[in-house]
This record gives sequence, structure tokens and C-alpha cells, in this order.
Amino acid sequence: MGTMDTMGTNTMTPRTTVLKIGGSVLTEKTDTPTPKPEAINRCAGEIASSVTPAAADNRLILVHGAGSFGHPQAEKRSLRNGFTSSEIIEIHRVVASLNELVIGALIKNGLFAVPVHPLGCVVAEDGRIARIATAPIAMMLDRGIVPVLHGDVVMDSRVGASIVSGDQLVTCLATRFGAARIGFGTAVDGVIVDGSVVPQITPETFEAVQSQIRGSDGTDVTGGMRGKVLELLEIGIASHIFNASKPGMIARFLSGEELGTRICGNADV
Amino acid sequence: MGTMDTMGTNTMTPRTTVLKIGGSVLTEKTDTPTPKPEAINRCAGEIASSVTPAAADNRLILVHGAGSFGHPQAEKRSLRNGFTSSEIIEIHRVVASLNELVIGALIKNGLFAVPVHPLGCVVAEDGRIARIATAPIAMMLDRGIVPVLHGDVVMDSRVGASIVSGDQLVTCLATRFGAARIGFGTAVDGVIVDGSVVPQITPETFEAVQSQIRGSDGTDVTGGMRGKVLELLEIGIASHIFNASKPGMIARFLSGEELGTRICGNADV
Repeated sequence: MGTMDTMGTNTMTPRTTVLKIGGSVLTEKTDTPTPKPEAINRCAGEIASSVTPAAADNRLILVHGAGSFGHPQAEKRSLRNGFTSSEIIEIHRVVASLNELVIGALIKNGLFAVPVHPLGCVVAEDGRIARIATAPIAMMLDRGIVPVLHGDVVMDSRVGASIVSGDQLVTCLATRFGAARIGFGTAVDGVIVDGSVVPQITPETFEAVQSQIRGSDGTDVTGGMRGKVLELLEIGIASHIFNASKPGMIARFLSGEELGTRICGNADV
Repeated sequence: MGTMDTMGTNTMTPRTTVLKIGGSVLTEKTDTPTPKPEAINRCAGEIASSVTPAAADNRLILVHGAGSFGHPQAEKRSLRNGFTSSEIIEIHRVVASLNELVIGALIKNGLFAVPVHPLGCVVAEDGRIARIATAPIAMMLDRGIVPVLHGDVVMDSRVGASIVSGDQLVTCLATRFGAARIGFGTAVDGVIVDGSVVPQITPETFEAVQSQIRGSDGTDVTGGMRGKVLELLEIGIASHIFNASKPGMIARFLSGEELGTRICGNADV
């Protein structure tokens, strides 16, 4: 970890929430980039109505996935082999265009939201975030602005360039900013085993359910549900995987409600 | 200066060039954001044809100004008073939309170009760049990708938020990356005194000409010509102010030609 990691990070900040809205919520899982404009606007409305502008004790970092705006492009190459310059440009432009739709909807709904593109502020090492410039994000939070990050292609010191998923950004940012709460708004009700939502997963119970956890439907190069659970188990922050495709669920999560599957990491059981 | 400043900076890199294309070249200096599509495409073509992809000894960092995509918005508030969250969002979105036009034209002309938005990777202190995440930029240069930055609103530890001009980005980046050469493509032939282009300005001759140096025509909150010369005199890197509105001049600059006004700082005379 480089020194850039800690710059501007304020781990004393109370009640920072990191919320990810999955690509499957915001886009059609098709071969070409296809947004769901109504879903984007509904999610934006729920977020905007839940976040008090400039409330220092109610900080939100938003992350969204790429869905059909990134994964099919990224899948052309394996993660380990890196990408050509043309592919880096193509992947970034497409996912940035989804970010623009999300930001536009958030602003239209009255939220102070600004884009933070990982390509310009994150460096990876073999697919994992090695450095992230947190100072601008910390200062946005200080004044009630919601930074909106997204799964992106980033420069990688080992393999040239790699994909940093929204999931990885969430756990990284939640750790650096000492988040009190993490939400994963997905297109399913939570972690499903034998047709039912598992209410809680801990490191102890993960072994029993992990073989039953299905990955996302459709194309997903970034790990799907099992990857999400694994990322969340590593950190000690109360996390919820819930269905953001159902109207009202984002607002309920942001109001503090427990819903979907709760993931309790080592320090949080 | 924070520790983030030096991360990833490779001051041993040979022949890095930092080129700025002024907002007055790319946009109409009007009250509303108005691009000059033909000028944008011509500049992009000259740059693309001059830069060999993936040539490790021919690195280019590109910066562009905001012109009518930023200055009128920024001027609503004085630099010292900072900006409201709404203004931050508005200023960033408008200048980012110009960046998208520039990036699109560069890619269309065959250049590997990616956007690097200062809002997400720069922090200012009282209007001056205090921290900048250089690691992603360094790694882009390593593989022949051209990072494209722009004048932007950024978070500011002293005044909340402030404008970082393209001019300031140029001198900051040129210093951090040990650039061999700086170009300022403007809408005039160079520094004009008594109707003629001054071929060279040094710290010694600056006193004699400074009262004659006019600022830019139209709205410009970021210092104009006199500010440019002052920034360049502070650093010891061969710099040229030339007319990028004249077809062919950017290509001539990038081919190594001396043109316009040469600014020689303290270490460069």
C-alpha cells in the first residue's frame, strides 16, 4: 500500500455509508450497452430523497456496477492478460457513459453528486486496488457532496491494466473511510440458498452455504454473488445484500432498516 | 506538498512533452458553452499524427482549457469565496462535456487518449494544487496512452472548492514528470508587445515587457497571457506560447520546432 492510500482519509467520520447499485439493476444484461432509464431514475430518486444535503453525519459514497456497459467488453480478454490500449479506452468510455446517466439522474433528483472515475485515481496490482486517491473523496463528503464511483478499467503495475469491480471499490472505500454500513443493491433478494434468502452469513456459516451460492445470471467478469460475499466477509462492517430492483428497498436500506442478507465479517459478528 | 505528489512520478523519463490547447482555440468565447467542432477536430488530427502510439520516448500529456465551457460559470463567484455544491457540480459537468468532445476527436483521429478529471485526483489549497495523484498518469505514459486533463473545479482545503486552471496543471505536471518541453497553444501568435511577437522572455527581460502583456480577450478567470508567462518563468523547462488556431502549428511544435514566444525560466536560460 502506498502513502496515497491514507491521505485525506478520515476514519473518525461517523456514519459513512457505502452503497453499491449493481449493474444488473441499472442496465439490461445484454451484449450491447443498454440502460434501464426508469430503474436508473427510480434508484436516483430513492437515494436523493434519503440523503440530507450537507448533513455531516449522513455521508454517502455511491458505487455502481457496469452491467452491459462494461462486462461484455471486459470479457473479451481475461483479467490476467491485461488489455490493449484500445480496449482500455473502449471499456472506460462505455462505463463512463453509464456513470453519466446515473449522475444525471441523481442531479435531476436534487442530489449533489459528482463523478469520480477510478481510471484517474486508482492503481491496481494484479487486479487488486493498490493505491487510491482518497483526499478528493474525503473533502466531497465533508461538504455533503456524494462521490459516485464505478467499476472501471485501471492501470495495473503487474499486468498493465485490469478491471476493478464495483464490489472491490466498495470494500476498499468502506475500509478506508471507516464506514458504519455497506449496502449492495442487487437484482435479487439477497443470498439465495434452496430458494430462500439467507438472513445472515458469518465466516462460520459461509462454509455450509458457499457451494449453494450461485453467481449472477448473464455475463459477469467480476465475481458475482459469491465474490461479493467473500469480499464482505473479509472486512468487519455490517453489510446488506438486498434487492434494489424492488421499488423502495434502497430508501429502506438508507433509512437504517435491516433487509436482505446480512454479511457479518470477522470483526462484526 | 503531500506524499501523493511524488507517487508514480518518474522524473527520469526522457522527452515528456506537456501540451496545452487553450479554451479560446477549442471554443467560442461566448456566454454559453459553444464548441468549435472543426477546430477541435483539426487540433486532434495534428496531435494524433504527431504522436507515435506506444513510443516510450515520445510521451505526451495533454491539457485543455475550458473557454466558454467553464469560465462564465466560474466567474459567477470569485475565486477566493469558493463555490456552492451546485456550482461545483455545474462547473465540472460543463467542462467535462468539453473534455468528452476533445477525447472523442482524439480517438477518432487514432490517438490512444483517456480523460483524467482533476476533480477526482487533485486537491487544492487556496487555489493552488496541493496534491495530485500522478501514479495513474505515469502508468498511462508508460504504455503510450495520452492522459487528457483540463481546467476544472477541485476540492480546496482552504476555501472549500476552487478553480485549477489548465495553465496551473501544465506547470505542475511538467515539473512532476520532468518534462523536456511545454507548449501553450493559444489563439494568438505568442506574447505580443507593440504589435510584434516577442521571440523570447527571460526573468531578466520580463520586467521590461510585463506591463505591455495583455490578458486574453473575453472572459478569463484564470490569468490570461500574463498569468501564463508568470507560471512558466517559475519553472526551468523550455516553453513555447504559439498560435494553435493556425493550422499546422501544433504539428510543428510537436515535431520539435521553435515557434511563437519562448519562455526561459531560471534554470533554462
